[in-house]
Amino acid sequence: MALPTPLRGVVPPVCTPLDQQGEVDTASLARLVDHLIEGGVHALFALGSTSEVAYLTDRQRDTALETVRKASDGRVPVLAGVIDTTTGRVVDHARRARDLGADAIVATAPFYTRTHPREIAAHFRGIRAAVDLPLFAYDIPVSVTTKLPAGLVRELAVDGTLAGLKDSSGDEGGLRRLLVELGGRDARGDGPAPGFSVLTGSELTVDAALLAGVDGVVPGIGNVDPAGYVRLYEAALAGDWARAVSEQERLTALFSMVDVGPEADMGRSSSALGSFKAALHLLGLIDHPATALPQQPLSEASVAEVGRRLTAAGLTPVR
Amino acid sequence: MALPTPLRGVVPPVCTPLDQQGEVDTASLARLVDHLIEGGVHALFALGSTSEVAYLTDRQRDTALETVRKASDGRVPVLAGVIDTTTGRVVDHARRARDLGADAIVATAPFYTRTHPREIAAHFRGIRAAVDLPLFAYDIPVSVTTKLPAGLVRELAVDGTLAGLKDSSGDEGGLRRLLVELGGRDARGDGPAPGFSVLTGSELTVDAALLAGVDGVVPGIGNVDPAGYVRLYEAALAGDWARAVSEQERLTALFSMVDVGPEADMGRSSSALGSFKAALHLLGLIDHPATALPQQPLSEASVAEVGRRLTAAGLTPVR
Amino acid sequence: MALPTPLRGVVPPVCTPLDQQGEVDTASLARLVDHLIEGGVHALFALGSTSEVAYLTDRQRDTALETVRKASDGRVPVLAGVIDTTTGRVVDHARRARDLGADAIVATAPFYTRTHPREIAAHFRGIRAAVDLPLFAYDIPVSVTTKLPAGLVRELAVDGTLAGLKDSSGDEGGLRRLLVELGGRDARGDGPAPGFSVLTGSELTVDAALLAGVDGVVPGIGNVDPAGYVRLYEAALAGDWARAVSEQERLTALFSMVDVGPEADMGRSSSALGSFKAALHLLGLIDHPATALPQQPLSEASVAEVGRRLTAAGLTPVR
Amino acid sequence: MALPTPLRGVVPPVCTPLDQQGEVDTASLARLVDHLIEGGVHALFALGSTSEVAYLTDRQRDTALETVRKASDGRVPVLAGVIDTTTGRVVDHARRARDLGADAIVATAPFYTRTHPREIAAHFRGIRAAVDLPLFAYDIPVSVTTKLPAGLVRELAVDGTLAGLKDSSGDEGGLRRLLVELGGRDARGDGPAPGFSVLTGSELTVDAALLAGVDGVVPGIGNVDPAGYVRLYEAALAGDWARAVSEQERLTALFSMVDVGPEADMGRSSSALGSFKAALHLLGLIDHPATALPQQPLSEASVAEVGRRLTAAGLTPVR
Repeated sequence: MALPTPLRGVVPPVCTPLDQQGEVDTASLARLVDHLIEGGVHALFALGSTSEVAYLTDRQRDTALETVRKASDGRVPVLAGVIDTTTGRVVDHARRARDLGADAIVATAPFYTRTHPREIAAHFRGIRAAVDLPLFAYDIPVSVTTKLPAGLVRELAVDGTLAGLKDSSGDEGGLRRLLVELGGRDARGDGPAPGFSVLTGSELTVDAALLAGVDGVVPGIGNVDPAGYVRLYEAALAGDWARAVSEQERLTALFSMVDVGPEADMGRSSSALGSFKAALHLLGLIDHPATALPQQPLSEASVAEVGRRLTAAGLTPVR
Repeated sequence: MALPTPLRGVVPPVCTPLDQQGEVDTASLARLVDHLIEGGVHALFALGSTSEVAYLTDRQRDTALETVRKASDGRVPVLAGVIDTTTGRVVDHARRARDLGADAIVATAPFYTRTHPREIAAHFRGIRAAVDLPLFAYDIPVSVTTKLPAGLVRELAVDGTLAGLKDSSGDEGGLRRLLVELGGRDARGDGPAPGFSVLTGSELTVDAALLAGVDGVVPGIGNVDPAGYVRLYEAALAGDWARAVSEQERLTALFSMVDVGPEADMGRSSSALGSFKAALHLLGLIDHPATALPQQPLSEASVAEVGRRLTAAGLTPVR
Repeated sequence: MALPTPLRGVVPPVCTPLDQQGEVDTASLARLVDHLIEGGVHALFALGSTSEVAYLTDRQRDTALETVRKASDGRVPVLAGVIDTTTGRVVDHARRARDLGADAIVATAPFYTRTHPREIAAHFRGIRAAVDLPLFAYDIPVSVTTKLPAGLVRELAVDGTLAGLKDSSGDEGGLRRLLVELGGRDARGDGPAPGFSVLTGSELTVDAALLAGVDGVVPGIGNVDPAGYVRLYEAALAGDWARAVSEQERLTALFSMVDVGPEADMGRSSSALGSFKAALHLLGLIDHPATALPQQPLSEASVAEVGRRLTAAGLTPVR
Repeated sequence: MALPTPLRGVVPPVCTPLDQQGEVDTASLARLVDHLIEGGVHALFALGSTSEVAYLTDRQRDTALETVRKASDGRVPVLAGVIDTTTGRVVDHARRARDLGADAIVATAPFYTRTHPREIAAHFRGIRAAVDLPLFAYDIPVSVTTKLPAGLVRELAVDGTLAGLKDSSGDEGGLRRLLVELGGRDARGDGPAPGFSVLTGSELTVDAALLAGVDGVVPGIGNVDPAGYVRLYEAALAGDWARAVSEQERLTALFSMVDVGPEADMGRSSSALGSFKAALHLLGLIDHPATALPQQPLSEASVAEVGRRLTAAGLTPVR
């Protein structure tokens, strides 16, 4: 299906449930997709960082994307992450994503190598030229070490290389500068890149980002509570900022589950993705809470803590 | 004068004008203080990073603080930065600040050394024990390399070591988590640290930060346009978010002057502080635009560009 | 062929020549392999960082490895890089490498994700369990952001998970501590991990590293002058340190070609890999100097400068 | 006394013993100076990082330098650290150092601010112009975040701004490039900066650094075992590399005491400086093992472990 221009709303990065052999649990994934769409989300982002894309083999990536595509069944658009180190490898993923029916693709700056703004520009232009799908830039320096320069994003927005930006940089000041340069909150449609979509991945400041004029949000914890982010988005659209703040505060408290895995035992990916999956499992949405190797599993005590955070946020564990 | 509890509003970090010999230009500094207070600011922060505290000798720091204190003349409280590497050196500055009449002091985590949360806690507790003034923690990882852990700030807020936080970390998500843990936007006064003041140094997202519940802002560009930040603050207080956003967008565009110094020629401090001082000079507020050694001066073309940004923002250069 | 235990000597990371369509130029690659073996190297490392492994598609990786394997024809062992983000993806590469006849595999810590020592250990153990080939850990924090903790390397060396270490961390002090803990220069064979091979990727301090007791070196510039590194290695083996130093100094001057690409125009990968390939092209060893997308090409002036460095080092351009 | 040109040999950064009130213990410091000079060291570096310069107040810095100066009594030259954030503050320290009789001064790049090569050059030139003492650049990115660019050091060496470099960057490859550009191991005296002294602060690779052609070493653990570093230096001078390696290996094992403080409890400064002082205390050289606030003290178990490392290295605790 055609992607709205600009893409707006809540676009969760869909978790990839795994079975006990570490393979994609397609039944759980389909159930999760239903949960998200029923929660009111506006699009789905498959194969993002929260989807454990960096942990999935090419075969597993195909299975996950295919499952999301089929389960969504045209109800909402599907964006697909095409995450790899450099242009040639990303283009391979982009072609697979196209063949599997993705409505748009999402790519990061090059990583593993030491890159440069000129090379990042060539990278996005090379991907766009190779595969005819709307292309989103995924700004995630915590993973790729490079922050996308604001001037570069603007240039690629204006010249049509990029359809949008998923900003997970955490640099809200830089994002604000970009938004102002694109016309500001109320005048972006008349600005130099009218259809360009700006999505924030900073899930704890969505009310603030919507106030500043972003088009939407890609919240990892939105897997667990999609309806909460939809309510937050709608409150902001309606100008009901008190309600938006209140919803954001509840979701921020819920998000604190990412800290249940003790730092001495595991990395932040294990702890964050492990808590999301534990929550989905406790809510009865997926059959197994497993994360992919070499991530470390949460302890029973950590899982119990996730359960308490769910309850405190008004969600009801069934296990 | 006693500091309000919590401290609220616009608290600009006061630039330190220098004369052609590189000494503190006290006449210009007094004029700048008047400009700020007449602009409606709620307190002054002397000897902050924007004040070039890291460039001033101890003697110059004394002169600058004394001048701000005298010029403000009890109209607004004066916070003093006590920026140095570790506890003993900071305590020396804190005692001087107390003797010169500061109403509160502002200290960073230890730097130059490789520190640790336990040491940072001991650092703030040691400063608080040595000098009986309200103590603000200054979270500025770009300068000291360490991000203050949220749990540590909360602990020191709850036990009364800290009177407040000046957050220049740029980590808006972390700030939001802290605000929620302290009770959330509307319930902070009933939370575990009721008088604790949270000020943001992220001057491009002040509307968003006020929406999230911060008490005030410490904007470097507020030297140039204090009245603009006061209008933004008042719009937010009144719940007029459209006006707050509009004011923030104008100030964000104005702030872009920090980029006029080409990266190939100078560091970010030179470019940012140089543009602020060029603007103050063009506005007729200070006599010389000089920054301290070894910062590099802006070119004439860069200064002309600063002038254009002033005009575009509705301010009127007199030179 | 079986890998010597420990692996010793000069093990260049083989550049991957590309044709004008960006595909692997197998004829040039075979010629380069001959050049290296005739230069006296002791093994070949295909699909390393210098081989542009991060830029090659899976199909191109297969072609490159297959070509190196065939061209070397059992004269020296072939190590294959199996570079990817996490365990499952690395295991896929490792299986392909095994099927294509690699004698050993080389893997980094997980990247893109935020990892942890326990996860890194699980990662290497998972790879070792899945594919029965000697496994080298590749410590390259500049690419993967994580430094392999010395204690972890020692643990995995002692328990047999790792056959060796390729240390491109640049942390020579840490490397020395590891060597001492493994028994020291003369007693490593009687130490806790007797067959463990320590190779340095720090090509400018090979004399020093050999003095400290490493087994060998993986020099990128060794593509250009393999015989030089072999002479350096042999001088060190013979205890002729004056000759080793002199050879190292000549190679260090040669290596400065990596700076010919101006920083304003390109990243460090482009400049370094571009200069190596320009040198191989000028020496008549490969047909095209192209690097993979999105790397930027060297200017003519930069290529001319590479030529001057070759001549200064006693090598003779033929173009 | 006049500094030798170039300065050569073992130049320990002198620990600053503290009494139970946290003040400089001048009697212990004088005893330590005797210990070092009797161990055969060639000069003393007061007020370095290992001297806890970042923790000492200006008054304490004066006391420490004065004590070292008096206790050394012209037997060896005394270099003084003049560590502070920017030019004006460093010049203040440099003047005090000169007045207290230092034979040379040692300054880092600016810190706390975001600096630039042009500013670093202006910084060193400004210091040199203000105080007529030989000036050493102290390259310590772990403390100041900036690595001194090799080209800049070379420029300031050639034009006479700098008398030498103390390289604690850990970048041995970069150091090698500098040495080669200055003429190489045997031809530095005929090179572009003939009297320029290159000292390494990388105390675990001193044999390697001397092989590469550095003039001397500034070893923190040299406080504990100065005679060991003098033997290592003399072995290298004599070309007895086997003996140099063996001594380095013993000192490397001794150095591992820096890890006795558990990471969960303290920063790396606390652990390293705490272990050095514990060792000096156990050896009866200083009266108290205290480190300055806010560093955390070693546990009894950690101190016992320091004792075992001393014994293993052939040194004899008296407590």
